[in-house]
Amino acid sequence: MYKCNSRRLQDSIDQFSQFGATINGGVTRLSLSDEDILARNYFCQCCKDLGMEIKVDDMANIYATLPGKKDVPPIVMGSHLDSVEKGGKFDGVLGVLTALEAIKTLKDNDVELDVPLMIVNFTNEEGARFDPAMMSSGVIASKFEKEKMLQSVDKNGISFQEALQASGYEGDQQHRLKEALAYIELHIEQGPVLEAKQLEIGVVQGVLGMVCYEVTITGQSNHAGTTPMSMRQDPMIVAAKTMLSLHEQLGEIDEQLVFTFGRMNVFPNIHTVIPNKVTFTLDSRHQKPEVMHKVEEILKNLPAEEMGCHIQSAKLWGRETVLFDQQICDEVEQSCQRFGYSAHRMFSGAGHDAQYIASIIPSAMIFVPSMNGKSHCEEEETAFEDCAKGADVLLETVLTLQTKFSMGESYTIN
Amino acid sequence: MYKCNSRRLQDSIDQFSQFGATINGGVTRLSLSDEDILARNYFCQCCKDLGMEIKVDDMANIYATLPGKKDVPPIVMGSHLDSVEKGGKFDGVLGVLTALEAIKTLKDNDVELDVPLMIVNFTNEEGARFDPAMMSSGVIASKFEKEKMLQSVDKNGISFQEALQASGYEGDQQHRLKEALAYIELHIEQGPVLEAKQLEIGVVQGVLGMVCYEVTITGQSNHAGTTPMSMRQDPMIVAAKTMLSLHEQLGEIDEQLVFTFGRMNVFPNIHTVIPNKVTFTLDSRHQKPEVMHKVEEILKNLPAEEMGCHIQSAKLWGRETVLFDQQICDEVEQSCQRFGYSAHRMFSGAGHDAQYIASIIPSAMIFVPSMNGKSHCEEEETAFEDCAKGADVLLETVLTLQTKFSMGESYTIN
Repeated sequence: MYKCNSRRLQDSIDQFSQFGATINGGVTRLSLSDEDILARNYFCQCCKDLGMEIKVDDMANIYATLPGKKDVPPIVMGSHLDSVEKGGKFDGVLGVLTALEAIKTLKDNDVELDVPLMIVNFTNEEGARFDPAMMSSGVIASKFEKEKMLQSVDKNGISFQEALQASGYEGDQQHRLKEALAYIELHIEQGPVLEAKQLEIGVVQGVLGMVCYEVTITGQSNHAGTTPMSMRQDPMIVAAKTMLSLHEQLGEIDEQLVFTFGRMNVFPNIHTVIPNKVTFTLDSRHQKPEVMHKVEEILKNLPAEEMGCHIQSAKLWGRETVLFDQQICDEVEQSCQRFGYSAHRMFSGAGHDAQYIASIIPSAMIFVPSMNGKSHCEEEETAFEDCAKGADVLLETVLTLQTKFSMGESYTIN
Repeated sequence: MYKCNSRRLQDSIDQFSQFGATINGGVTRLSLSDEDILARNYFCQCCKDLGMEIKVDDMANIYATLPGKKDVPPIVMGSHLDSVEKGGKFDGVLGVLTALEAIKTLKDNDVELDVPLMIVNFTNEEGARFDPAMMSSGVIASKFEKEKMLQSVDKNGISFQEALQASGYEGDQQHRLKEALAYIELHIEQGPVLEAKQLEIGVVQGVLGMVCYEVTITGQSNHAGTTPMSMRQDPMIVAAKTMLSLHEQLGEIDEQLVFTFGRMNVFPNIHTVIPNKVTFTLDSRHQKPEVMHKVEEILKNLPAEEMGCHIQSAKLWGRETVLFDQQICDEVEQSCQRFGYSAHRMFSGAGHDAQYIASIIPSAMIFVPSMNGKSHCEEEETAFEDCAKGADVLLETVLTLQTKFSMGESYTIN
């Protein structure tokens, strides 16, 4: 068992947090921005210094490979270097930097492996500059059509294609990740569970299925001062009632179900005018399809009319639960036990590149605790010792897997 | 009793609706815009054609006077020519055009009065271009400081002062309306009551007192997918509960009370993020101060905390109920009776120039029905025959008042 160098990992996190640093201790490193390209350049240099070979595919995904003694498919680690606007210095980049630290630790100990190790940086995971999120892992896993993705435009009117061409990171389609023995992505939890339970490592079994609906309530706009209460068709009141009714019904389904009314728009949104339309979203997630089915049934059974207003719901999108490779999850958990780190089997409520990669390569994820459950903000924080524990577990899992692979064990996609 | 010329009034309304006409049959005639200036120019020409003398004050309020045989203060009619963005062709302008029609009818019948008659067009009643509404009647009634008003800026960065200077309608402060025997403003109801009750004329006794509060609920932003329900401080749910609780409590106070949650803003308003802040406004109106007091008590007694969120309420503004001159109201009602028009004593829920003018001159208002209660929109509509009935009542009231004035009766401000 090798322990990673906690101090070196911290330096590495600090170093990368300079690319797009914000004054409040966060980072803005939108995909293929100057800041992202500086981070990519530095990442490539770090990999070259470790004797790794760099390849880039047509979606600007970067693959750095440490050759093995055998000519077999690699074990892949990694995540993404891009961030949201005013994001934190751990989301994404930590999966890349713990992978780098794992390889540095192998070098420290003069360990040479049979199996090649690869670190991947996926382009535009956040979707903060170009919609959708997890764009490039999605393209290589055939979830998205590349041609459509090239047309995605940022708020300044620059297309992904233009940004790609200007970046210097438009590589060859032949380099896309196709075959690998395993993909392991370390990431911050982005939720409060590990911290609340005082646990060190999350063994991520999969990514929750989700649905997102938009509910639209249509009424009648009128003057706030001249319209008697009895003559109103006020969608705001109906929206509040509908939301609380959904909150109550959904709350009774399953303790693990999460649901959120995150976006609400009121039209015309003037204090002296009774609105004519109110819309709100319902995002709901759970690992079991039968639970998600109940959520959708409740939405489909909303009354069509209430207090003179029309109620409609429309599904904006949904995804099925993605299950990770249970054998890799077991190895992660056993690695934790060997270090004496407390581990917790859990699902990810957030989306990650691993959810798409899982359809082409046996995959799993490792979570480290997020302080106060915060992410996608400048206050995002994970203790450096927790990051280092994650790196220990990542390396130990990779080593165990590579030993088993080189002994002839095979993994299948679940 | 003289009946106005319904056909001529209709032509006049159609003529003025060309100034700022929108493709859907409404008007956009923002204060001191080119469209407003064209309407002003045409209004002045109409008045001159009737032998009236035009004066303009320093707030661009226009006063057109038809001399009387006696040198006494005038009886004033009028309203405003400006509109909101995509407003209707009746709001405001109808008070000016029915006054013009009343004077034309006197001319038709060769009636010369002892008392001068004045038509006023108040500048920037809507407040749609320059905040606040009823700006210029407010200045001459000492409700607003002129210097502050001059600094008010439209969305293109043009100040009221700049627009005033460019308009050609910056007149003399000495011309401000100071002394008059009465002010009578005819206006569309902007509500559904007259139409619903199948009544022809509203005798407006005053303008409802109002308060506007903003309620702010502060919680904790977190990821919609990774935060268990039990670990949330979600201000959206608390906002919905608070709104429904207020709706229930306020609904029990008085049948005549109106209250509206017209504006609601959610932060950051992203479907995958639990909001950290939700704000909503409560606009509430009633003629009785003791009722408004109960509304404010309920707002002050909101719980400070619920479900881990903080609840605060702040008063944005308020106004006391304005009572109009009861003798003028009686004359309006009796004029209706003489024509056989059904009349209804009511309060205005909306604000009008008359509410400020009432503090310096005995004032009252005449309402005509709004179809479907609509106003401030292109669908705003009042039947031309209803407009003409309003003009009949306006003229009859003015004639009765002038007779009584010339016989020596005096009115005091209530």
